[in-house]
Amino acid sequence: MIAARVVERLIAYRRRLKAWLADGKARIYSHELANLEGVTPAVVRRDLMTIGYTGSPARGYDVAGQLEKVGQVLDPPAPEGIALVGVGSLGRAILNYFSGAHPELPIVAAFDVDLGKVGRIINGCPCHSINDVEAVLRAGSLRTAILAVPADAAQRVAERLTRAGARGLLNFTPVRLRVPPEVYVEDVDIAVLLEKVVYFARTEDR
Amino acid sequence: MIAARVVERLIAYRRRLKAWLADGKARIYSHELANLEGVTPAVVRRDLMTIGYTGSPARGYDVAGQLEKVGQVLDPPAPEGIALVGVGSLGRAILNYFSGAHPELPIVAAFDVDLGKVGRIINGCPCHSINDVEAVLRAGSLRTAILAVPADAAQRVAERLTRAGARGLLNFTPVRLRVPPEVYVEDVDIAVLLEKVVYFARTEDR
Repeated sequence: MIAARVVERLIAYRRRLKAWLADGKARIYSHELANLEGVTPAVVRRDLMTIGYTGSPARGYDVAGQLEKVGQVLDPPAPEGIALVGVGSLGRAILNYFSGAHPELPIVAAFDVDLGKVGRIINGCPCHSINDVEAVLRAGSLRTAILAVPADAAQRVAERLTRAGARGLLNFTPVRLRVPPEVYVEDVDIAVLLEKVVYFARTEDR
Repeated sequence: MIAARVVERLIAYRRRLKAWLADGKARIYSHELANLEGVTPAVVRRDLMTIGYTGSPARGYDVAGQLEKVGQVLDPPAPEGIALVGVGSLGRAILNYFSGAHPELPIVAAFDVDLGKVGRIINGCPCHSINDVEAVLRAGSLRTAILAVPADAAQRVAERLTRAGARGLLNFTPVRLRVPPEVYVEDVDIAVLLEKVVYFARTEDR
C-alpha cells in the first residue's frame, strides 16, 4: 500500500531524476534530490525505502537504477491511453498542453456533446460523441479519464465513465463526484486553489 | 495559524453552504456538511472550531452565520484583483473559465510576451506586455498571480512577480519555483496529477 502523497512525490522525483541524468550526472544524494523537490532528505530516503530502493550514504543513489525502480512501481505494464471528456476551452487547453509534451500520458480519445466537434481531430486527438463513451473506452480498455465538462454534467458523465470501466478520474469540475470505492478521483478545483492562494498571499499564517 | 489543508476545506465548505442556503435551508448539521464534502463530522466540527464557530448538536449550525464567519476569515477586507501571466491555451482557458463564473476572484490583468496579444482584451481581460508587470501589479496592488507560462520562463517570471509585490502564486508550470519565504506557491502540475490517477486507476492500493 503506497499512500497517495508518496506516489505523488515518486512521480515528482522521477522528473528531477530524468533531468539530473540528462545533465550527465549518474549519481544523486538524498539531500540533493530532497533539495530539488523541497522536502527533507529523510522523506526522500523513506519514500525510496517504501519502494524497496536504498542508496549508500557514501555514494548516494544510482540515478538510472532509481529511475528503473520508480518506473516498475508507477508505470503500467503497457502504456495506457487516457480519455478526455469535454472539449471546451479547458479540454482543448489540456490537449494542447499534452500534445507531444507527454508521450507517456497519451490522450487517445476525446468526447463532447457538440456535434460540431464530434468526428473531428482536435489538437491531434479524435473527438467522439459522448454517446459512444462506453464503446470507445471498452474498445481501447481505457481506465483513466479527464473530466472537463460543465458542472451540471459532471456526475452523469462520471457514472457513464464508471460503467464503461474507468477506474481513475481527474476531475476539473467543482462537483464532489459520487463514485464506487474502486474508482479513484483526483479533484482539481482551480477556483478553490486560487482562493487558497489569495488567502495565503495576504497572511503570514503559514 | 490556520493550516493550508484547513483553509482548503473552509473554502470548499463555503461552496456547499452557499448551495445549501440557495436551496432555502437555513441550518445544517456537521454530519450533513461532512457528507457533502466527503470528510468526517469530527473534521468539520474541528475546522469550524478553529475559526471560532460552534454549532449546537441539537440544532446544527446557522448557515448564514457560518458563511459570514468563514468569509471574515478567508476574504480580504476589499476584493482583490488577480494577475494572469501567460495567455497561451491554458491561460485563455483559465480566463474563459473564470469570466463571470467567479466574480469574487476577478482576473483584472493578463500578461504575455506575444505582441499580437498585448494591448488587446482577451476573454474580457486586458493583456499587457510582460515588461509592464511591475508597473501594473503595483498600480493595482495585485498580490496574487496565476503562472501559465512555458516552463523555461517560469522562474524568471516568478522573480519579476515577487519583485513587483506578488505574495501568492498559482503555478501551472512543472517548475519547482525558488521564491522568498513570504511568497506562497501552490503548484498545479497537471501531468503529475494525471500520472497519479493512472497509477491508482490500476491498483487497489488505497
